[in-house]
Amino acid sequence: MTVRGKLFGVGVGPGDPELMTLKAARIVGSAPVLAYFRKRGMPGHARGIIEGYQKPGCIELALDYPLTTEVPFDDPAYRETMTAFYDHAARAIAAHLVAGRDVALVCEGDPFFYGSFMHIYHRVASAHAVEVVPGITGMSASWTRAGAPITYGDDVLCVLPGTLPRAALVARMKIADALVIMKLGRNFAKVRAALCDAGLSERAIYVERGSMAGEVILPLTQKTDDQAPYFSMILVPGRGRRL
Amino acid sequence: MTVRGKLFGVGVGPGDPELMTLKAARIVGSAPVLAYFRKRGMPGHARGIIEGYQKPGCIELALDYPLTTEVPFDDPAYRETMTAFYDHAARAIAAHLVAGRDVALVCEGDPFFYGSFMHIYHRVASAHAVEVVPGITGMSASWTRAGAPITYGDDVLCVLPGTLPRAALVARMKIADALVIMKLGRNFAKVRAALCDAGLSERAIYVERGSMAGEVILPLTQKTDDQAPYFSMILVPGRGRRL
Repeated sequence: MTVRGKLFGVGVGPGDPELMTLKAARIVGSAPVLAYFRKRGMPGHARGIIEGYQKPGCIELALDYPLTTEVPFDDPAYRETMTAFYDHAARAIAAHLVAGRDVALVCEGDPFFYGSFMHIYHRVASAHAVEVVPGITGMSASWTRAGAPITYGDDVLCVLPGTLPRAALVARMKIADALVIMKLGRNFAKVRAALCDAGLSERAIYVERGSMAGEVILPLTQKTDDQAPYFSMILVPGRGRRL
Repeated sequence: MTVRGKLFGVGVGPGDPELMTLKAARIVGSAPVLAYFRKRGMPGHARGIIEGYQKPGCIELALDYPLTTEVPFDDPAYRETMTAFYDHAARAIAAHLVAGRDVALVCEGDPFFYGSFMHIYHRVASAHAVEVVPGITGMSASWTRAGAPITYGDDVLCVLPGTLPRAALVARMKIADALVIMKLGRNFAKVRAALCDAGLSERAIYVERGSMAGEVILPLTQKTDDQAPYFSMILVPGRGRRL
């Protein structure tokens, strides 16, 4: 009987390959199958990060998202299409595991922090061995590159998706000491208005592509447009106990 | 004229040495001075993580905390003692920088996330070159080891220090989707009561020493005592969009 393979959900960090962990580099360097998500027609962000670290001759398994932002999340077609996609991806991975091959599914950031990997994990972990390797998050890279310590002493940190309604954003902004606001994109103008409502605009920092090529870091008050790509976030550092 | 050294604030992750980044390992392996915080009389947690990775023959600079929990944070003696300690530590580091030696100050977790390093950063960065290397946080290690993806889709994550009053904890618990509660220690019974008030006890997971020797992970409902050491936290995973 063939020994079954193991699935590794490998966080490869925010972009700079040197921000991979030693464990991630070891697993990526030895796994016979390298899997990654990507936008159709694109090379894949996580795949790009690990270039040169993969096992020579490994089998590559590209998992092409069928859609990204063309269909709204609350459209039943979104759920149906994405559920079928994850079912298919999990089966493709499981086929390698059944054949005795370990699979390293590389994921930008941390696999268990807003990661697509979680949808694979729930499908595969009941029948197969799975090990997850945490990664440096995009938010850690962003506050590091901004030179902005995010939380001090007893600060409360709130991580907010920009997709929430303006009033919901403001309510949460008001009871946190430090903020990370992600998923800006078309929500940017609304997020900016919410920060203004909460009296936080002056403390906010805009970070685009933190730790990657094309990095942009500036006070939110100096950002004159409302354009914010996928790899962007707003930080409001805490002001807790300084010693 | 001697070229001045550079201070590296190096996140070395939560405990498992393999969760160091490639960049952390490179800097720790080449810096002529290795600095670390520790409790007086103890080997130092960050120092323990990097054992075997340091540059052979490096100068070691141990920074001994004058106190930890003996004096309450709101006692003026706490502030006075700790401020003098960080002043002294920053001067000891700067002396090496002025002499042209790079210093790697190793920090458990991520240096800019509730880190002692931040108090050094504010003292040193105006006069010297400083580079910060983000690290895997203890919370990432904990949700990974617990097999508990923490945030899905549009979940709001709130990181709460257990030091807050019970009512303040409950108010924040109620408007988040996912929670990480740190600084348990003597606050454990209060935090448990707050989770009960917020109707979240059944979803909570207790993690002690995540990714370290002596790791304990169990549903909070199965934890029968109120003892929680320094390296412990409670997680409440989000229940956002599953696909």
